[in-house]
Amino acid sequence: MATDSTEKNGSAAKNEIMEATYRALLEQGYADLSISSIADHLEKSKAAIYYHYDTKDDLLVAFLEFAVDRFEETIDTETGNEPTEDLKHVVEKLLPLQPDDEQRQLQAVLVGLRSQAVTNEVFREQFTQIDERLVGTIRDIVKRGIDKGTFRDVDSSRVAEHILATVNGAMYGQATTDRESAAAAARVSLASYIDSELRRRL
Amino acid sequence: MATDSTEKNGSAAKNEIMEATYRALLEQGYADLSISSIADHLEKSKAAIYYHYDTKDDLLVAFLEFAVDRFEETIDTETGNEPTEDLKHVVEKLLPLQPDDEQRQLQAVLVGLRSQAVTNEVFREQFTQIDERLVGTIRDIVKRGIDKGTFRDVDSSRVAEHILATVNGAMYGQATTDRESAAAAARVSLASYIDSELRRRL
Repeated sequence: MATDSTEKNGSAAKNEIMEATYRALLEQGYADLSISSIADHLEKSKAAIYYHYDTKDDLLVAFLEFAVDRFEETIDTETGNEPTEDLKHVVEKLLPLQPDDEQRQLQAVLVGLRSQAVTNEVFREQFTQIDERLVGTIRDIVKRGIDKGTFRDVDSSRVAEHILATVNGAMYGQATTDRESAAAAARVSLASYIDSELRRRL
Repeated sequence: MATDSTEKNGSAAKNEIMEATYRALLEQGYADLSISSIADHLEKSKAAIYYHYDTKDDLLVAFLEFAVDRFEETIDTETGNEPTEDLKHVVEKLLPLQPDDEQRQLQAVLVGLRSQAVTNEVFREQFTQIDERLVGTIRDIVKRGIDKGTFRDVDSSRVAEHILATVNGAMYGQATTDRESAAAAARVSLASYIDSELRRRL
């Protein structure tokens, strides 16, 4: 059972668990993750984790929410200027042109988690929300570009789905093949699409 | 052990196993697939399967090869005319705009199999080859379009990677979320990209 201080600091404790989950996932990947390994990274007992999350799946669903919240916070503070630049910035954040080891491992973790969504309804709902939020972020930038006259009057929803599908597909390919340069090639073509297809020709 | 006729008809027997695997995957999905369930669909014993494939993974790798061979045969007989139409035809084959139940189930099966490639080296090699072959098919059509003057002088490799990433990402989203119209929206935007970005403006 939880101590008083755990209850008072529930949200701080949850944040610590999320940070420990992130470090454990980066080190071990999704397949080998256990509550024990998260507890090791947390330097607390497994009970401290089970107080907040009934199962490993509950914890992972919360982790996905935590990761997307954090991603969106970064995007919010780093965008808001020229729509073309903002769009490229979001694409670079989602699919770095030259991912470092941590970013590659994070991609592998996300693909591992996401594959559960084929059969697991709770993960499926979570990834439905994640894609909704990401496509919303992209769509808002495209809309802003159309309003400002930077972009042509395209269907912002369709374009946003196209960009998200390309980013997700390239990340998926990077995590499931040895095709080293494929994701970068798709990224460059996507950037040229944003430049030439979306931007109004002056 | 195999009978003489099994040895003589090894390739016919393997084809029957592949067909039975396909039916079993469509009915049960990837997660519940077993050699027993394939044997049921084959109306033969498990030993008849183990004669050709040592493990379920061996069989699944062979199945992936079989599926891609068949896909490429279809594409070869159905393309060879106008590059824009050929490209749209390949995209429609890979990602049907209105997938029926069998096509949806096949997508879920492929995503399930592909998720194994994050950690399984043999599956990873297989999906590396699959993506190489698919991107080659797309690239050849783009090159033909450039040679014929139908397409602008784009980088055919980059464009092919972009198209494959979009198709894979949309299929991936369809199998792992409940976002019903997302794949169709990405498809429509991809078609408009092929029409307006690739085609030479006359």
